[in-house]
Amino acid sequence: MLQPLVKYCNAICPISDKLGEALLEYGEIIHLKKDELFLKAGMVSNHASWILKGLVRSYYVREGEEITTKFLTEGATITSIYSFYSRKPGNEYIMALEDSVLACFTYDHMQRMYKDFPEFNVIGRIVTERYLYFLEIELYNLRKTKAEDRYQYFIKHFPDLHQRVPLKYIATYLGMNLETLSRIRGKKK
Amino acid sequence: MLQPLVKYCNAICPISDKLGEALLEYGEIIHLKKDELFLKAGMVSNHASWILKGLVRSYYVREGEEITTKFLTEGATITSIYSFYSRKPGNEYIMALEDSVLACFTYDHMQRMYKDFPEFNVIGRIVTERYLYFLEIELYNLRKTKAEDRYQYFIKHFPDLHQRVPLKYIATYLGMNLETLSRIRGKKK
Repeated sequence: MLQPLVKYCNAICPISDKLGEALLEYGEIIHLKKDELFLKAGMVSNHASWILKGLVRSYYVREGEEITTKFLTEGATITSIYSFYSRKPGNEYIMALEDSVLACFTYDHMQRMYKDFPEFNVIGRIVTERYLYFLEIELYNLRKTKAEDRYQYFIKHFPDLHQRVPLKYIATYLGMNLETLSRIRGKKK
Repeated sequence: MLQPLVKYCNAICPISDKLGEALLEYGEIIHLKKDELFLKAGMVSNHASWILKGLVRSYYVREGEEITTKFLTEGATITSIYSFYSRKPGNEYIMALEDSVLACFTYDHMQRMYKDFPEFNVIGRIVTERYLYFLEIELYNLRKTKAEDRYQYFIKHFPDLHQRVPLKYIATYLGMNLETLSRIRGKKK
């Protein structure tokens, strides 16, 4: 099941056989059922995970309400950035929105591969750059003051997501309530 | 003037003499006066820059108002993430808030160093991870609905900045108007 990941890495930068073996040895396949939690608030995020199949969201709870912070699909990596890099407990939950399959690597295995295989740093750098680019788009969108503008920007940049994700999650992700989102969508039709 | 950068890289990962020479050869020192622009909207961001001295902000113009998107100080890197990675013109301006000194590398030189020196990918990966962590903190803060909470979070995470940055820039950065920010600060005293 890890072969697509080896292929994915190879497409970014040709990897040595040894790194290919390490990816297969360290990678742990995790199957998540729809609505199953992968990370809970208060825990240290100990895995960087590639999404091989499915759709995952992260969120935190603010005054009793779940605030969605990210949606990630096939080919993307997911972790709780704050917790993974700081090695401290975070406030994020990670949950499958569809039946999903993740290829998971512990923090220690990631560091070992970075140390042992120079080319893994090329892959890590490029994957992190893509994530940075993705976060910049999110940040830019969240700075928009009009809810409708945020929704249009979301549709433009993530056209596949709004077909797959329940509206209630898109609403908190875009910093609006469900009624506002429904109104905007109604107007569009 | 580029020696501090070589030292900075060496502290992240021991670099070869050849990479040290490439950094000195490709690095261009740029001096910016306070309020001087380094990047304008509509241009392709062609440099990744290390701030050797000073304080820089990025912003874009929304309905005639400058919306500050980042403050970056000594030791940080600055570029227009969207434009630099997409190689397309962006809408961001980069401006010095104090007399500043930048060590600038063109996109092509960055790619060449990544290609020629495996260890530069280690540095690039770690610097990008730090930036990612920084953006995640910004994103988390922007999702807070109460202006006062955003200000407190900003003070906590960037205690040095609010001494160095004019209030009007902090206000748009935190998604509030100057009156709101002044009121929050007044209450605190």
